[in-house]
Amino acid sequence: MHQRIYIQEVAPRDGLQIEARFVSTADKIALIDALSRTGVAKIEATSFTSPKAIPNLADAGEVMAGMTRHKHVDYVALVPNERGAERALAAGADELNLVMSASDSHGLANLRMTPWQSLERFPAILDLARGRNVFINASISTAFGCPFDGEVPASRVIDIIERLTAMGIRGISLCDTTGMANPAQVRTLCKEVLGRWPELMLTLHVHNTRGMGLANVLAAWQAGVSRFDAALGGLGGCPFAPGASGNVCTEDLVHMFEEMGVDTGVDLDALLAVSRTLPDLVGHDVPGQVVKAGRSSRRYPLPESVRAR
Amino acid sequence: MHQRIYIQEVAPRDGLQIEARFVSTADKIALIDALSRTGVAKIEATSFTSPKAIPNLADAGEVMAGMTRHKHVDYVALVPNERGAERALAAGADELNLVMSASDSHGLANLRMTPWQSLERFPAILDLARGRNVFINASISTAFGCPFDGEVPASRVIDIIERLTAMGIRGISLCDTTGMANPAQVRTLCKEVLGRWPELMLTLHVHNTRGMGLANVLAAWQAGVSRFDAALGGLGGCPFAPGASGNVCTEDLVHMFEEMGVDTGVDLDALLAVSRTLPDLVGHDVPGQVVKAGRSSRRYPLPESVRAR
Repeated sequence: MHQRIYIQEVAPRDGLQIEARFVSTADKIALIDALSRTGVAKIEATSFTSPKAIPNLADAGEVMAGMTRHKHVDYVALVPNERGAERALAAGADELNLVMSASDSHGLANLRMTPWQSLERFPAILDLARGRNVFINASISTAFGCPFDGEVPASRVIDIIERLTAMGIRGISLCDTTGMANPAQVRTLCKEVLGRWPELMLTLHVHNTRGMGLANVLAAWQAGVSRFDAALGGLGGCPFAPGASGNVCTEDLVHMFEEMGVDTGVDLDALLAVSRTLPDLVGHDVPGQVVKAGRSSRRYPLPESVRAR
Repeated sequence: MHQRIYIQEVAPRDGLQIEARFVSTADKIALIDALSRTGVAKIEATSFTSPKAIPNLADAGEVMAGMTRHKHVDYVALVPNERGAERALAAGADELNLVMSASDSHGLANLRMTPWQSLERFPAILDLARGRNVFINASISTAFGCPFDGEVPASRVIDIIERLTAMGIRGISLCDTTGMANPAQVRTLCKEVLGRWPELMLTLHVHNTRGMGLANVLAAWQAGVSRFDAALGGLGGCPFAPGASGNVCTEDLVHMFEEMGVDTGVDLDALLAVSRTLPDLVGHDVPGQVVKAGRSSRRYPLPESVRAR
């Protein structure tokens, strides 16, 4: 089990895309800039999708142009197609996060493509990126189950990874888009993937829809995974996946690992300070728990009855 | 790792004790009766404490007298002292759950006794129970940390268990009273305890204060623990432990294990049906997530855009 893990903060993309209200470009930039100073390894800054599909992220280019890049942070852009890839490359993304689904119905609902159609489109995106200093990651949505199709066999996910790695892709994210995964399933799939592709940069992306977020993260870590997506405050959700709710919460994940003695590279106090700004930013309470309860090391004053003894 | 786990439902005690409003005796009885039909192994029905200290459970005797006992369920009463034990025995409890703290300050705040004073009092309670067909469990609060004193060394908990087992006590609950435990700590302590006392009926009791509830349960299960306390809806908290919030949620815990293929003995649908009555019972929303999201196996209809293809 790795004693150092790496966090990709996805709140600016996965978090803000689903919010009821548009977060201003200036506020998005301020959020990314604040996150850049917390020690996270990567920030998924935005998504170069159709503004019609995801109006909240219509300002993707302005956000990437306005943010201040920190040398220790990789800035990632989600891209669903060639047009998105061109825009993300023009914006200077350090990494393109290609997205596809493991299940037919979610693929069709989210991207209007089956997994096999997505795989046919990816080489054209890779061609656009060739010769540029940009890392390519592929996110496999509904890798642990689909809200429409139900169970997604591990063999299908393995088959998809086989094809992705054959294209030269070295980064894969297994995404539990609607929080259907359980720890036994996460452990089995992650072990199988890392067993077959030990050099793969494998990331786990989970949602906390059914309360298993941190348990699934723990199971993946035990299976050898050291890269995790998480969203500040537990924001997040997929507009094209009914029942989706927030991502696993970054500060709660960082807190758990730090308490376990595992280095996350993140300054938890700095992260909590940014988290405290979220309710004002999005206009509602957010699910994160450590920001409310304080760290496990928090001490309370003795009650009067004890002090008086 | 055990393929069958046993659930003690603690909402009627740990859940209702902290609620702002008094739940009527009839409603408590109805809750216990409904829980009795779900397949949980034990129900902590009430606490025989001073009505001044815990006014919400002042009707402990009436509750125990009014509920309908199910032959497959053990009905447990929490008892802080001899007076409580006498009342619990008179009420026909199947099990007395003696309570003490691992830390001095929480012991003084909650029970007006240090751990060592509690240990001196226990033999008198055991004398009362001798010759009766009643199981004795001892719950060790703040076993993973104290909100006043901070870190609680594992050696102190081991020392306490040594003394409890020397008295003939065969059931011990390790309680993370204010959700300070992390999975590495839970694994280490549970492994040590089960290594030393393989025959011990060891129960893990965790609160989800910092989001680690199910991760801690998973870690304990991996360490060989098969008995878990949990509260329906994630109710719960200790009035004498600042920062305490809800117990790990029973239906979320059952759902996780059932999804993992581990038998809980519980009918999850029946449990979810009882959980749906909670907001009306306590007058507010509760933290449980599966009751809102549905099981992982929940399916949604295909969106029109996909159906129209």
